[in-house]
Amino acid sequence: MSKIPVGILGATGMVGQNYIALLAGHPWFEVKYLAASPRSAGKTYGEAAAGRWHLRRGYEAALIDGITVQDANDVGAAAAAEKRGELAFVFSALEMDKDAILGLEESYAAAGIPVVSNASANRWTPDVPMLIPEVNAAHTDLIPLQQKARGWTKGFIVVKPNCSIQSYMMPVWALLQAGYEVKRLIATTMQAVSGAGFPGVPSLDVIDNVVPFIGGEEEKSEKEPLKILGAVEGGLIRNAAGPLISAHCNRVPVSDGHTATVSLEFGAKKPSVEQVKEVWRNFRALPQELGLPFAPTQPIIVREEANRPQPGKDRDADKSMAVSVGRVRACPVFDIRFVGLSHNTIRGAAGGGILNAELLKAKGFLG
Amino acid sequence: MSKIPVGILGATGMVGQNYIALLAGHPWFEVKYLAASPRSAGKTYGEAAAGRWHLRRGYEAALIDGITVQDANDVGAAAAAEKRGELAFVFSALEMDKDAILGLEESYAAAGIPVVSNASANRWTPDVPMLIPEVNAAHTDLIPLQQKARGWTKGFIVVKPNCSIQSYMMPVWALLQAGYEVKRLIATTMQAVSGAGFPGVPSLDVIDNVVPFIGGEEEKSEKEPLKILGAVEGGLIRNAAGPLISAHCNRVPVSDGHTATVSLEFGAKKPSVEQVKEVWRNFRALPQELGLPFAPTQPIIVREEANRPQPGKDRDADKSMAVSVGRVRACPVFDIRFVGLSHNTIRGAAGGGILNAELLKAKGFLG
Amino acid sequence: MSKIPVGILGATGMVGQNYIALLAGHPWFEVKYLAASPRSAGKTYGEAAAGRWHLRRGYEAALIDGITVQDANDVGAAAAAEKRGELAFVFSALEMDKDAILGLEESYAAAGIPVVSNASANRWTPDVPMLIPEVNAAHTDLIPLQQKARGWTKGFIVVKPNCSIQSYMMPVWALLQAGYEVKRLIATTMQAVSGAGFPGVPSLDVIDNVVPFIGGEEEKSEKEPLKILGAVEGGLIRNAAGPLISAHCNRVPVSDGHTATVSLEFGAKKPSVEQVKEVWRNFRALPQELGLPFAPTQPIIVREEANRPQPGKDRDADKSMAVSVGRVRACPVFDIRFVGLSHNTIRGAAGGGILNAELLKAKGFLG
Amino acid sequence: MSKIPVGILGATGMVGQNYIALLAGHPWFEVKYLAASPRSAGKTYGEAAAGRWHLRRGYEAALIDGITVQDANDVGAAAAAEKRGELAFVFSALEMDKDAILGLEESYAAAGIPVVSNASANRWTPDVPMLIPEVNAAHTDLIPLQQKARGWTKGFIVVKPNCSIQSYMMPVWALLQAGYEVKRLIATTMQAVSGAGFPGVPSLDVIDNVVPFIGGEEEKSEKEPLKILGAVEGGLIRNAAGPLISAHCNRVPVSDGHTATVSLEFGAKKPSVEQVKEVWRNFRALPQELGLPFAPTQPIIVREEANRPQPGKDRDADKSMAVSVGRVRACPVFDIRFVGLSHNTIRGAAGGGILNAELLKAKGFLG
Repeated sequence: MSKIPVGILGATGMVGQNYIALLAGHPWFEVKYLAASPRSAGKTYGEAAAGRWHLRRGYEAALIDGITVQDANDVGAAAAAEKRGELAFVFSALEMDKDAILGLEESYAAAGIPVVSNASANRWTPDVPMLIPEVNAAHTDLIPLQQKARGWTKGFIVVKPNCSIQSYMMPVWALLQAGYEVKRLIATTMQAVSGAGFPGVPSLDVIDNVVPFIGGEEEKSEKEPLKILGAVEGGLIRNAAGPLISAHCNRVPVSDGHTATVSLEFGAKKPSVEQVKEVWRNFRALPQELGLPFAPTQPIIVREEANRPQPGKDRDADKSMAVSVGRVRACPVFDIRFVGLSHNTIRGAAGGGILNAELLKAKGFLG
Repeated sequence: MSKIPVGILGATGMVGQNYIALLAGHPWFEVKYLAASPRSAGKTYGEAAAGRWHLRRGYEAALIDGITVQDANDVGAAAAAEKRGELAFVFSALEMDKDAILGLEESYAAAGIPVVSNASANRWTPDVPMLIPEVNAAHTDLIPLQQKARGWTKGFIVVKPNCSIQSYMMPVWALLQAGYEVKRLIATTMQAVSGAGFPGVPSLDVIDNVVPFIGGEEEKSEKEPLKILGAVEGGLIRNAAGPLISAHCNRVPVSDGHTATVSLEFGAKKPSVEQVKEVWRNFRALPQELGLPFAPTQPIIVREEANRPQPGKDRDADKSMAVSVGRVRACPVFDIRFVGLSHNTIRGAAGGGILNAELLKAKGFLG
Repeated sequence: MSKIPVGILGATGMVGQNYIALLAGHPWFEVKYLAASPRSAGKTYGEAAAGRWHLRRGYEAALIDGITVQDANDVGAAAAAEKRGELAFVFSALEMDKDAILGLEESYAAAGIPVVSNASANRWTPDVPMLIPEVNAAHTDLIPLQQKARGWTKGFIVVKPNCSIQSYMMPVWALLQAGYEVKRLIATTMQAVSGAGFPGVPSLDVIDNVVPFIGGEEEKSEKEPLKILGAVEGGLIRNAAGPLISAHCNRVPVSDGHTATVSLEFGAKKPSVEQVKEVWRNFRALPQELGLPFAPTQPIIVREEANRPQPGKDRDADKSMAVSVGRVRACPVFDIRFVGLSHNTIRGAAGGGILNAELLKAKGFLG
Repeated sequence: MSKIPVGILGATGMVGQNYIALLAGHPWFEVKYLAASPRSAGKTYGEAAAGRWHLRRGYEAALIDGITVQDANDVGAAAAAEKRGELAFVFSALEMDKDAILGLEESYAAAGIPVVSNASANRWTPDVPMLIPEVNAAHTDLIPLQQKARGWTKGFIVVKPNCSIQSYMMPVWALLQAGYEVKRLIATTMQAVSGAGFPGVPSLDVIDNVVPFIGGEEEKSEKEPLKILGAVEGGLIRNAAGPLISAHCNRVPVSDGHTATVSLEFGAKKPSVEQVKEVWRNFRALPQELGLPFAPTQPIIVREEANRPQPGKDRDADKSMAVSVGRVRACPVFDIRFVGLSHNTIRGAAGGGILNAELLKAKGFLG
């Protein structure tokens, strides 16, 4: 069976580079279409990326370097490729201002090209699902409603949430699903610099230093979970009422991997430390059932060592797609506390986007 | 007026080196007596420390290198020096097991030599005050009771608390004193590697990594404040009932300076963000009133920038003795949240010990 | 075909852990015997290593954790395992003083167990080959002479050189082999902390710092190449006369990967920059011809970007076994200068040891 | 005596910030005039710099924040200030393209305002001296010739060399002056990220990494010494013929302080290691004789420890203005090798500029 041809919008940026690196050898998808800023358009990818490859892992140049980069603003070029059967959907890793991304992602969808977006622009568009496949795969039910409301036939938009919440969102969901209401949550994140893209954080700000502020990150961390945990209702997502979250977001001298310390307060039904670990160890969801290629076998890995998880040792667990938790113990103030960790540019960005696309493919939304 | 001759127990260790570096040019105290392990005893300090100076700042070798290092176990040598008027009191920076330190500090005190200790061994001895001079200077009232109970005349023991709580203990105290009860507190610390001494944390554990665990640190962080906030009663400290604390302690790739993110829940009387900042800006205490040499002019510095305090930029504020706070804002879960920072090896260790000695001198406890 | 059972001496140390991690799934070898210090002996590996796994990559616990660790001093236990067919040879990653290692490696060899050593103890034993398989595979000719001289039948000892020279030794050899005499060489290395093992370099020494000294490293870097380039003569290695080397060795804040800047002076026949790159690009040697599992396809990778190789981006090239070079350009003082890079704990330690064993197997020395 | 009013061009950039921080409390100079890009012009410095202070050390806001920032392109504003006696000369820390700086520095000089420049634009202007006061103070003889040739009366331009050569230029000069010809020199630098300004090097490029390339740095390192060591002849500098230099420049994860490893080849007269150290220890020059405020007491500090100098421990030696050297030893390839270190943003930038101005003042060039 031939692979599905996919495109990447923003292919020369850091998230775009991650898509290229991760999709090499993907069993279902094949990168066939690359678009970036007008400055790169018309060059081959090899020319456009020369000396500008920012990732520590490389990419399979033989598959990619010969592709001519298109102008991401030229939706017509993509539509033509789609008509020729050379493009089935796009991953959006656009780096522009919010309005430009909103407009462009809509144009692609209107032109019949599904958009699996990593950008934050459409996260709060009410009829756009914000997906973590292990948590709210059911939100794909919005897609036909979105298409109907917008008058789109094949195209649609889905997004993924911010990387800062990935290290505790799935653990919280697993507990909710097991019947333990999480009422309140105070989290402090120690986030990797790769979350800021390239050039991102100046090195003078991170050598022997911590920056206890990331613009907009705490607001996203506190609000996005409510949409993810919300219900599809009347063609929109009705946000969940809780949990109530306080997020303290910090930048630390780490390349990849966001670590979070989390204190949880439960409702009336309170699990023991052992029950929490049991819930997490046994947690499996639709991506595991469907055997999606990027789905981690065990989505939540519970570590028993006193000093784990650590970004240096645990970020790459199970294709860098698993969430690692550890130090699960009683909290003197709330009920339970723990440390969570996930790979921010893989699970939290391009890898999460690919898993979203795999879910959509498995559910029949990508033709 | 001639200076008071002081000794340092554990003079070759990292805390001992900090005492030596910080006491150069002190207006009241002069280092005259150095003691360390038997391995160093008998050598001059210059010989014992050659190639083993671990601090980034240097020390005044001309004043120190010629002193012959004594065996710290040889209390008699110290007692003889005290009799000759060459030693008035000692800073204890001993690095031994807890029982050995307990015994040795008591022996020095019994021999008539006050011990201003940086070690943790005596922190929970009920009649030993654990001092932060801006917070509980009144706990020095225990000293005569301690001396009486032990049958000591001139000698006594005081200690300082752990470095991990220094970035929020003084801010919490200032609020309590202003009439705002702090009921509960969840703090996450991002601690510098110098807190572990030398050799301390292996470099393989901190390059591009975070270690979310420091042995014993969370317990100390949760319990020590209750003694510091306690009351002198019947010759002992009766611990305070609150605040209830949950501490998440992490090691990050920073050389000096512990940063903490803190969420506070108040009692019935809740200050606004502006009131909190006002309380902190105006906070002054006995060390400031007495004009102690190591006392910061403004003990709590409130920063208004969005991204401060940072260890790299703020740890050295006001002789590295001020606590810097910032990002004071409402907490969605509790009432107020903020970021606190203090220099762990100065305010949190040797500098704090020197301030304790200055307080004791000003109160007449050091002759 | 069943795999060859191998042992690891020093299995709980950092080099031993690297052997365990790298040998998982090896097509020829299978770890069956683990030995360490008396403290670990008698425990299962899972017990002995619990909380003491220092590598960023993990290991296949299912294959290893159940093995009972032997006392590395108990050669008889190994000899018995060899008799039972459960041990064909050992990788020595012993961490002891030099004399102890010398004695112990000889005892294993005398007991009929070949020793493929990573330790430095036997590097200057005249009849022990110091192997880089791409450079001096012919030195295995010494093995029968060594066995005869010592009266050993099956056992023997081979070693590998220091990690600090690996980033330029193979490039120099490729040029020599192409007929360009390298007369003099000045190299400055920027070495990763993992080269010092665990706990190794204290973090206080590497955060925001460079340490321009590594004990014994410059001497090894200057002398070992002369043995590697030497000739087998009369049952010993006669050292080569050149090149004359000056090595400046530095420790930098990097986890893995040694980088070297190198200036080369040639003899009368001087290659152009293009000829040097051509020689390196085309260099292949016996491990490539034999298709050894750990042999890199292209042993020297020539990078054309202005700012490569970099340890973060290039250390893992081709199973972390390739040497990456770049910035090949004219030297104003000598003839040619370049930057070389290799992975110090893989190519420069355990991976290099495995490649040595593969070479020995292919040549029939391992039964 | 009232202080000399000075201006800073480029006052909001990182070098400009260093001038502001270092000039606080200067005994001769007082910052009275600040100029920056049109974007900052018209604001007070406090407004322009809010949230954009990049240095780890702070500045005396009370003295500076109220000054209204001028447009650096508006030379007329500076000329008017000079006429009012409010500006005697400027430090140029302009960050523009080379041609713009060339034109602007000439305009200031033509308007009667001496320019003490940190920019590289005028380094190769033949009648502009490139000064290290301990090395070529005599090059100030060019100033009257420069003024005459340009038709300037009070104004003139002097520059300082690149930061990368400061850790070995003064040691080399001391040897030359002692009668030891240095014929050839191979140096490898490990340079701090602050040398690239702000935002400068992206953090993703320095965490756990080395970048073995800095654009243009090797060329500057190899050529600038020849002008500095040149002779004033016919109104220009005639470059020295040697030494011949090969520089390998690398960026390492260090905030401040450039470290260099250096191998030196002497002419016929070759000093011993002890003689080299003696020459360096005894080296004093005009800034020391004149007692210039920023002159280090001992310009070259010779360290005897095995592992020094280190940027973390030695960059701040003697007001961060001394060069520290160590590991002076025989070189197997050349004659002598050593490690040199200097603070790149102080001795190598703003501090060096201030020392230049002090020299000019002492010689009567600043009125």
